[in-house]
Amino acid sequence: MKGVNITTFPFTDLLNMTVHILTIGDELLIGQVIDTNSATMAQMLQTIGGQVTGRTTVGDDPIAIADALKSVIQKVDVVLVTGGLGPTKDDITKKVLAKFYGVGFVFHQKTHDWINKIFERFGRPVPEGIRDQCLMPQNATILRNKRGTAPGMWFDENETVLVSMPGVPHEMEYIMENSVIRKLQERFPSSPIAHRTLLTVGEGESRISNMIKGFEESLPEFIKLAYLPGISRVRLRLSISHEDEILMNGFLDEKFNELKSLLPAHLIVADKDIPLEVALGQLFKQKGLTLSTAESCTGGYIAHMITSVPGSSAYYMGSIISYSNEIKMNQLGVKEKTLKEHGAVSEQTVKEMVGGALSLLKTDIAIATSGIAGPDGGTPDKPVGMIWIAIGNKKQVETFKLRLGNDRTRNIQYASIRALNMARLFAQNNY
Amino acid sequence: MKGVNITTFPFTDLLNMTVHILTIGDELLIGQVIDTNSATMAQMLQTIGGQVTGRTTVGDDPIAIADALKSVIQKVDVVLVTGGLGPTKDDITKKVLAKFYGVGFVFHQKTHDWINKIFERFGRPVPEGIRDQCLMPQNATILRNKRGTAPGMWFDENETVLVSMPGVPHEMEYIMENSVIRKLQERFPSSPIAHRTLLTVGEGESRISNMIKGFEESLPEFIKLAYLPGISRVRLRLSISHEDEILMNGFLDEKFNELKSLLPAHLIVADKDIPLEVALGQLFKQKGLTLSTAESCTGGYIAHMITSVPGSSAYYMGSIISYSNEIKMNQLGVKEKTLKEHGAVSEQTVKEMVGGALSLLKTDIAIATSGIAGPDGGTPDKPVGMIWIAIGNKKQVETFKLRLGNDRTRNIQYASIRALNMARLFAQNNY
Repeated sequence: MKGVNITTFPFTDLLNMTVHILTIGDELLIGQVIDTNSATMAQMLQTIGGQVTGRTTVGDDPIAIADALKSVIQKVDVVLVTGGLGPTKDDITKKVLAKFYGVGFVFHQKTHDWINKIFERFGRPVPEGIRDQCLMPQNATILRNKRGTAPGMWFDENETVLVSMPGVPHEMEYIMENSVIRKLQERFPSSPIAHRTLLTVGEGESRISNMIKGFEESLPEFIKLAYLPGISRVRLRLSISHEDEILMNGFLDEKFNELKSLLPAHLIVADKDIPLEVALGQLFKQKGLTLSTAESCTGGYIAHMITSVPGSSAYYMGSIISYSNEIKMNQLGVKEKTLKEHGAVSEQTVKEMVGGALSLLKTDIAIATSGIAGPDGGTPDKPVGMIWIAIGNKKQVETFKLRLGNDRTRNIQYASIRALNMARLFAQNNY
Repeated sequence: MKGVNITTFPFTDLLNMTVHILTIGDELLIGQVIDTNSATMAQMLQTIGGQVTGRTTVGDDPIAIADALKSVIQKVDVVLVTGGLGPTKDDITKKVLAKFYGVGFVFHQKTHDWINKIFERFGRPVPEGIRDQCLMPQNATILRNKRGTAPGMWFDENETVLVSMPGVPHEMEYIMENSVIRKLQERFPSSPIAHRTLLTVGEGESRISNMIKGFEESLPEFIKLAYLPGISRVRLRLSISHEDEILMNGFLDEKFNELKSLLPAHLIVADKDIPLEVALGQLFKQKGLTLSTAESCTGGYIAHMITSVPGSSAYYMGSIISYSNEIKMNQLGVKEKTLKEHGAVSEQTVKEMVGGALSLLKTDIAIATSGIAGPDGGTPDKPVGMIWIAIGNKKQVETFKLRLGNDRTRNIQYASIRALNMARLFAQNNY
């Protein structure tokens, strides 16, 4: 595919439909809930050429909802609405939508059956007032919600599609994944769109950006490069759209390989859109290795990341979380002398923790962490944010010291991600 | 305070000023960045009677920004704008604002001095083009930003205040805390406002709503009740505003106690706005108890929740995460016979896991979990979503079986929250 003449290469626009996101809920306005739904939806829409051109948030107020609908409905192809569909009295979106479209309600038997099934499964009586929840606007197509009692609703009037979903993130995600994305693809057919995603761990956005500056500047306009930063990781995504899938994929692969060649190998975790913990699991499975952890300051977050992957029991055996020094000594066999001379937050301690985990939990590789997660508890010698990580097997142990800030949550997550990535590199380089 | 005659009780409106939040940035629309600023600002505003009545997000597009400003500026008392103030080429908010108010730019010497100081401190040369960053719209009052190079701007024209701040969260927070909140309080003096928040765990929103239906219907209009649901938990918040703080707090306490009395005691975790894991920590500290965990299917998430609380090392000793049966047997002392006869996911196994954790980690109380987190791995006998929880001390062990769905992430979180709440109740009832 090398040497495709890009000037005669008729790429289509990546933009296939414009989308406005309307999120409803007093809890959003008063700041009690952070809106993660909008970002999730925007990312899902990109895979089918949907571009979010604006977002609006209003409270549980019929007039505000109706005003917001009126002001956006003619400006975009699709309006995605979340929130205000549950059983309590502030949930008024359904009524506003029926009024907005000038239609009445019909009883939706399937919704009634679904809700009954959910309550049956949990062995609970169906609450009163559940019939009201099954009344749906006449012109709505009902979208199943397997994770909750309020289904999604699909409206298609006057050339604008409107989809209403519950605000609970995993319910919205279920309806998006199982109905909305497919239906939007049918409704707004587009040229095929292709993406390539590279997951990097270990450098921030601005340093990555410096490394690939020339590549980015030389990219033709019809290829989009997106930076998707997270804690201690950046995903880089190339996107393109074209009628001829073979041609398009060949061209995209060429550019993607060029991108990969510009970054140091140790930064690259995966050349597909998977999380670090999944990439780590695939590697350990492929090499037939087993893993255990001995966590102090990360307090179980590394174990949680690993076990969030289905099937992780094939390579992950378990962990000793040694929050107290007694457990470090009694379970992991860290020497009292080591703790006295070097302290719990030290290279020597995490090395001995690795040794303890290996012999106790009988795995090929073990990870250990110890540090001051914060926000308090630091000393001049060992300030808040100092975290030691060790990775090793019976033959060798590698250690690494992080110097982070005062944010406990961020420190725990950052150290866990770095530790997992070190374990991945250790397995890759030594087996 | 019982028997206050509410009909002659001159409550003021909770609302002191209406606020619209306008967030600017392509990174928000495409879902690269989750908007946490809006929630932070809304929470800060509540303390001074500011009520966010709507939020809009637009991209880095002068027309979209100007349109959004025009459509909200006359509807509210205050518009808070974040984003689009940095040195990069998409940062256009300042120009849009000058045009919006029909004013020119003036050089702001203080900003120039501040920026110079920041670069001096980091020992870096002041970049070119910094003078442009010091040009400010003529009618703006400049608000110092100690954490970055772009200051905030305060406009007060035609009875609406508009504040523009950078989108970087800790810079916005600095300007809000050090300038905006104080200036808004001076500009819109208000009556005091009070809130009471109740955290419940164990029932969903609709069942809670049924339990307090009468109370909710009888609430006078000047008291606001908000439902704030999460996974397996619901927060209930009452809000009120009045000139007389003592009277107001007395009346609110009366209503809050009424609300509490309507819910079964085991559902009520805390009568302040704190998370479950903090409430648990306070209880264990207060009673001088220690806790350990033995997690199988929850894979470290319980440990992570507990250790996300600063100072948790005072009562939490650690965990044995026994993902494999070998660790259940070798570390936790679960009998081979038990695993053979009842399986790893059984009441007997979690009971023995509690025993193992108690003797190994030497704590007063231990939590154990074992289940099929999903999405696969179930059998007709033990379907996906079946999770056993045990809590106990040396004298007694309580067990509980959950029947959840196929969603691994949700199952892990749900089971962890229920397990923590069981531990809280166990400590409360037995010590």
